[in-house]
Parts: sequence; structure tokens; C-alpha cells
Amino acid sequence: MASTTDPELKSSEPPPPPPPAATADAVDYFKIDVILRVLLFASSLAAIIVIVTSQQTEIVPLLTGGFARRPAKFKYFVAAFSVSGLYSIITTLASISVIQKPQLKLKFLIQFIFWDTLILGIIASATGAAGGVAYVGLKGNDHVSWNKICNVYDKFCRHIAASLAVALFGSVVTLLLIWFSAKALHHRVPK
Amino acid sequence: MASTTDPELKSSEPPPPPPPAATADAVDYFKIDVILRVLLFASSLAAIIVIVTSQQTEIVPLLTGGFARRPAKFKYFVAAFSVSGLYSIITTLASISVIQKPQLKLKFLIQFIFWDTLILGIIASATGAAGGVAYVGLKGNDHVSWNKICNVYDKFCRHIAASLAVALFGSVVTLLLIWFSAKALHHRVPK
Repeated sequence: MASTTDPELKSSEPPPPPPPAATADAVDYFKIDVILRVLLFASSLAAIIVIVTSQQTEIVPLLTGGFARRPAKFKYFVAAFSVSGLYSIITTLASISVIQKPQLKLKFLIQFIFWDTLILGIIASATGAAGGVAYVGLKGNDHVSWNKICNVYDKFCRHIAASLAVALFGSVVTLLLIWFSAKALHHRVPK
Repeated sequence: MASTTDPELKSSEPPPPPPPAATADAVDYFKIDVILRVLLFASSLAAIIVIVTSQQTEIVPLLTGGFARRPAKFKYFVAAFSVSGLYSIITTLASISVIQKPQLKLKFLIQFIFWDTLILGIIASATGAAGGVAYVGLKGNDHVSWNKICNVYDKFCRHIAASLAVALFGSVVTLLLIWFSAKALHHRVPK
């Protein structure tokens, strides 16, 4: 077993000749990976579109107060899902390229775990931020006199709710991506 | 190389005799792991304490509106960091036990990645939710007439800000935990 004979060799990371690795489970894993990443892209795009259209369709009733501040409230949300959308395009292409060149598998798996984890942190916090604000909009807060707004702007709130649902779905997809990558990495460790 | 000779054997997971694995890097990794988990526990505890004390010290100026609703606003935040605090206690003990029994290393690494990722999603979204509400409190929102509250409740807002900083630190620690676990797992894969 390689792990018992040369641990020092491994931990200092020499450049070994890349062996043609076992491709069967690799291709299967990366097919799931591609599907999940396309789902992540779709949900990122949907979350952005739904929340941006909610702002545009609410311009008319907002003329009393001006609508310049509204985009600022969900700026972080839109930015986070723009990043995850772009990221999912790049990694989908990377994942497809791995299906064609299975010897790159190991390198991509560890990179995917690293970056997916970062993206998970970003989009989970963005979902939470939008969710927190939406909760205040739904329930209000009496003693600081923040009134409920969802009984007035009901279409706006429905957009936010839909966007949050899609965003949550995107977060779960990212979670699954990390789990699958870790599982695939785990499979390659000699027992 | 094991990965080229018996891929089917590995993917069907037979029960092989566990070899005495290389312990040097394992112990080093799990020492970092224990330290990070203790940090996670400390930051979870601090985040909860700071946000809970902010509610108690603000009872007097809130008598105009009743204070019953205030705890509800940060209920998710307190719940999430209670979970991560409890989780960090359990996994710290688990991590210490692995230092004493290195043959359990592989099993714990994959479990740590799975659960740490879930915890990251929970506390990142909780941090985001509290941050989103705190942002509205700081900046206000004119056209739905949500006034700024941080110029009035400045001590409350300082508590929230401190709690958010600690919570963000806890999220970064969790991110590092996943990265270290993935790296440790990656080291054990034959190149």
C-alpha cells in the first residue's frame, strides 16, 4: 500500500508520472457534477432575474418615495448570485473538460471543493441577508416602527419569496456539489 | 499503484484490513483541526452572548413599544450559533479521539467535510440574515418608511456589529476547517 511505505514522499509532493487513472466512476461522478453545476447556473440566473424584475415592476407605486434606494438593499444578493452564476459557467466547462481528460480528475476535485465551499459561504449569506430583510417586511417590527410592507407591495414580496426559494435551492445544489466532490475524493483513497 | 490495478474492487467497497496508516501528518492536521474547532466554539459562544446581552440591556428604552418582538428577530441567529457551538464541542472531542486512534482518520475526515459544510451553510446564512437586518437598521429605507435605528439605539447596534464580526470569524473558521479536511484527504490519495 502506497500510504504505508512512502508517507514522507507523498507529503513533500514530488512530480510523479500521472498514471492513467480509473475512469469508470470518474466519468459518472463528473456527469452528476456537470448536471449540478448547470442547475446552479440556472438557479443563480433565475434568482437574479426574479429579484431584478420585482424592482422594475414596482416603480409606479414607489413614486411617492423615490426608488433610488431599493436596488441598494439587494445589491449584495445580486452580486453574490452573479458571482455564482459566472462561477458555475466556468466550472461546468472545467467539469466537461475533465470528462474528456480523466487524468486531470484529482487536481480538479480538490480545486472544486475549495472554490465550491467559498461560493457556498457567499450565496448562503446572501440568501440569509435577503431572507432577513424579507422577514422584517413580512412581519414588521413594532417597537422600532418598521411597518409590514408585504400587505402593500404584495407582488414585490412574491418576487422576493420566489427568488429566495430559488436561491435556497442553489445553496443546496452547492452543498451537494461539495458532498459529491468529497465522496469522489474519498473513493480514491486506498482503504 | 492501487488505483490502476483494482478500481472495481475499490468502488464496490470491500471490508479490507485497516493498515496502520502514516500518522505523522495526521496528528499535525488534527491538531490544527482541534484548534480551529475550539475557535469555532469560542466564536459561536461569543456571538450568542453578545447578541443576547444586547437585548437585555435595551429593555428600558424599549418600554414604549414592548420588547416581546425583539428576540424573535434574531431567533434564527441564536439557534444557528447554538447548533454550531454544540457541534464544535462534539467534533472537538471527536478530533481529539482521532489523535489518539489514527486508524479512524479517514472515516472522520469525510464525515467532518460533510457536516462542516452543512454547518457552514447554516451559520453563513444566519450571519447574512442578521447582517441584512442590521444594514437596514443602519441605513434605513425611506420609501417604505423604515427609519434608521442605530442613531437611537447605538449600544444595541454596537452589540449587533460585534456579534456579526464574531459570527463572520466563525464562518471563516468553518471554511478553513473544510479546506484543511479536504487537503488532508487529498494528501492520502496516491498520485
